[in-house]
Amino acid sequence: MEIIVQKFGGTSVANLECMQKVKEKVLKPLKEGKKVAIVLSAMAGETNRLIEMAKKWSKYPDPAEMDVLVSTGEQVSIALFTMLLKDAGIKARSLLGYQIPIRTDRDFGRARILDIDEEKLRNYFKNYDVLVVAGFQGCDCENRITTLGRGGSDTSAVALAAALKAKVCEIYTDVDGVYTTDPNICSSARRIDKIAYDEMLEMASMGAKVLQIRSVEFAKKYNVPILVRSTFKDGPGTLVTKEDPNMEAAMVSGIAYDKDQARVTLVDVYDRPGVAANIFEPIAAAGIVVDMIVQNPSRNGSTDMTFTVPRGNVEETVKILEKIKDKLGAKEILTDTNVSKVSVIGVGMRNHAGVAAIAFSALKNENINIMIISTSEIKISCLIEEKYTELAVRTLHEAFGLEKEE
Amino acid sequence: MEIIVQKFGGTSVANLECMQKVKEKVLKPLKEGKKVAIVLSAMAGETNRLIEMAKKWSKYPDPAEMDVLVSTGEQVSIALFTMLLKDAGIKARSLLGYQIPIRTDRDFGRARILDIDEEKLRNYFKNYDVLVVAGFQGCDCENRITTLGRGGSDTSAVALAAALKAKVCEIYTDVDGVYTTDPNICSSARRIDKIAYDEMLEMASMGAKVLQIRSVEFAKKYNVPILVRSTFKDGPGTLVTKEDPNMEAAMVSGIAYDKDQARVTLVDVYDRPGVAANIFEPIAAAGIVVDMIVQNPSRNGSTDMTFTVPRGNVEETVKILEKIKDKLGAKEILTDTNVSKVSVIGVGMRNHAGVAAIAFSALKNENINIMIISTSEIKISCLIEEKYTELAVRTLHEAFGLEKEE
Repeated sequence: MEIIVQKFGGTSVANLECMQKVKEKVLKPLKEGKKVAIVLSAMAGETNRLIEMAKKWSKYPDPAEMDVLVSTGEQVSIALFTMLLKDAGIKARSLLGYQIPIRTDRDFGRARILDIDEEKLRNYFKNYDVLVVAGFQGCDCENRITTLGRGGSDTSAVALAAALKAKVCEIYTDVDGVYTTDPNICSSARRIDKIAYDEMLEMASMGAKVLQIRSVEFAKKYNVPILVRSTFKDGPGTLVTKEDPNMEAAMVSGIAYDKDQARVTLVDVYDRPGVAANIFEPIAAAGIVVDMIVQNPSRNGSTDMTFTVPRGNVEETVKILEKIKDKLGAKEILTDTNVSKVSVIGVGMRNHAGVAAIAFSALKNENINIMIISTSEIKISCLIEEKYTELAVRTLHEAFGLEKEE
Repeated sequence: MEIIVQKFGGTSVANLECMQKVKEKVLKPLKEGKKVAIVLSAMAGETNRLIEMAKKWSKYPDPAEMDVLVSTGEQVSIALFTMLLKDAGIKARSLLGYQIPIRTDRDFGRARILDIDEEKLRNYFKNYDVLVVAGFQGCDCENRITTLGRGGSDTSAVALAAALKAKVCEIYTDVDGVYTTDPNICSSARRIDKIAYDEMLEMASMGAKVLQIRSVEFAKKYNVPILVRSTFKDGPGTLVTKEDPNMEAAMVSGIAYDKDQARVTLVDVYDRPGVAANIFEPIAAAGIVVDMIVQNPSRNGSTDMTFTVPRGNVEETVKILEKIKDKLGAKEILTDTNVSKVSVIGVGMRNHAGVAAIAFSALKNENINIMIISTSEIKISCLIEEKYTELAVRTLHEAFGLEKEE
């Protein structure tokens, strides 16, 4: 018995017409004699509607009760969709998180999956050809409802695929795959046939919001191939899978960008051990995620410390720094919110020299100044003036020949 | 540890302002050192919204999936209300049907409660002062969601009260108690302080829609006193309880009416054994509830058979009768939808002669013709022309002195 896992997002189940299209996607594997576990999100807009409601009721809604509330969104989706399947004579039933169960920790609102009862899940397939599973939700050890955080339905689907040892986890969305860059700003952006987990992680965290980051981490850990496809358009999609030798042929797989960046500079802090820790510990304690960090070479025992934070955290970051400014010897705190980050991503970089040089020279040719550079094994990121974002993305896309067929 | 059970209907949790009022009701017993199990319905209109949605999706929605769908209404209510309690520093949590669990049979859409885990329920009270329970829902032996039918939250509340051996089950609604008759048509209608289960059953089935009939049956079976009160107005309410000698003082407790009646007459059917069975078996098989039945004395071996059905079932009833008409020897099938039923209800009737005579003579004085009479130990019902309904109710209300204080 071959089981495949399919996941459909909120726009794919937004209304009756959309759900009819989803039904067609399920019929295909059924006709091939396969069984299907299908994971659904809440109908587009529903989760936000519920969250807004809770905010009216309470300034700081209780996280556990919040999960009881928002998990109704997926419950509605799976009930309605199963009705459609039953009308078509398909042996189907809906499954809520606690019914499988999908066991999670107790971190309400952003719970992590601990365990899925594989045997119980397989047993359901004895009586049903399609199991319609509520995404985004699980239950803790006391059977309280938990949710997995925004985009958590992707993680639900990958976790089910891992538990069922499915050959592939198909994630249907409103785009037909992962692109070499954002097609909205670069008309020559091209769908990628195959991308490595690590590349996808970098693409996802850079704002290519096709998949929830955690779902990719999960897929990597359990080696579950993810096929990203469009609900509304037929096509091969993008396969997110483990690195293989063929992938290394391409030096660079994609260009990502992120405009939610702000630069903060502490001018003339003492250049002595512990200074970096003194700066970043209180910022981390406030739950602010620092991205790029650069420290200039020392001049006369002092240095400038520059880093980036999400724009919404700039004020709070400055407040924190004001308190410790004197202790650090800092003369000034500078901020700049007109910045963005462009990144060149590719597992092929590991084996190719000169990727950075190509990137820097391409940006130089357009007179785009680089403020901060940060690199990893498979990524080079540059902080630039925000107004150059689109130009930089197009320039880098062209410099690495990404518009060409693989 | 004294535990009280409170239930609030859809209009009581319709919005934030209403829920704030409900919160006040919970605070009172808490201040007296009691613990509270509070049962909530879906917010007014929500259940209908979900049902309408399902009807768009499917002509005959799968009953099991329908329960998954509509049970989200109560889930939303309990989550939001518990947020309010937590904000007020109250140790509270929400409980869904399967979490208690409230075990039911598998008759989706109109399930019956089989068992409530009293020990588990009491254990929850070790950690919480208020348990906010989703009304209307339970779960079957496989942990699938079931619902108890319209008004089922009343039954949930009474069942919890029975399991917890609570002294009283307080049912809050938008009226301040059970009235001697409908105040909308009889200005001298009076709130009843105390009413017997059997009387309440008759009142409820006659269209005094304060309580779900099954909840009263449940309360009678387990001897749980129900106190019906208003969420929005302070007052003593109406206590629904077992008969006691004091109740017998009043001969009649209330006047009910039901306009959803239609009369069907089969003219000149053979007067022989089995005819009644031949008529009513196929009608019952079609799920049509026959209320009053009267058979005239035989004339020359044939008789007229007259009965009432809900108005919406008249056409179907006639269709069924057309098929068997010749076999029964019936000359004609007559129908009349301009009829209604008025009923005089009271456990005191058992010990008082002459109740029927008072009723008939009161109607005669207003020239209201009685088409069918049906009686039980505690009830006298008369079918009359619909246009006289209000007049008949007022006349009977006055004839039995119901406007006077008890």
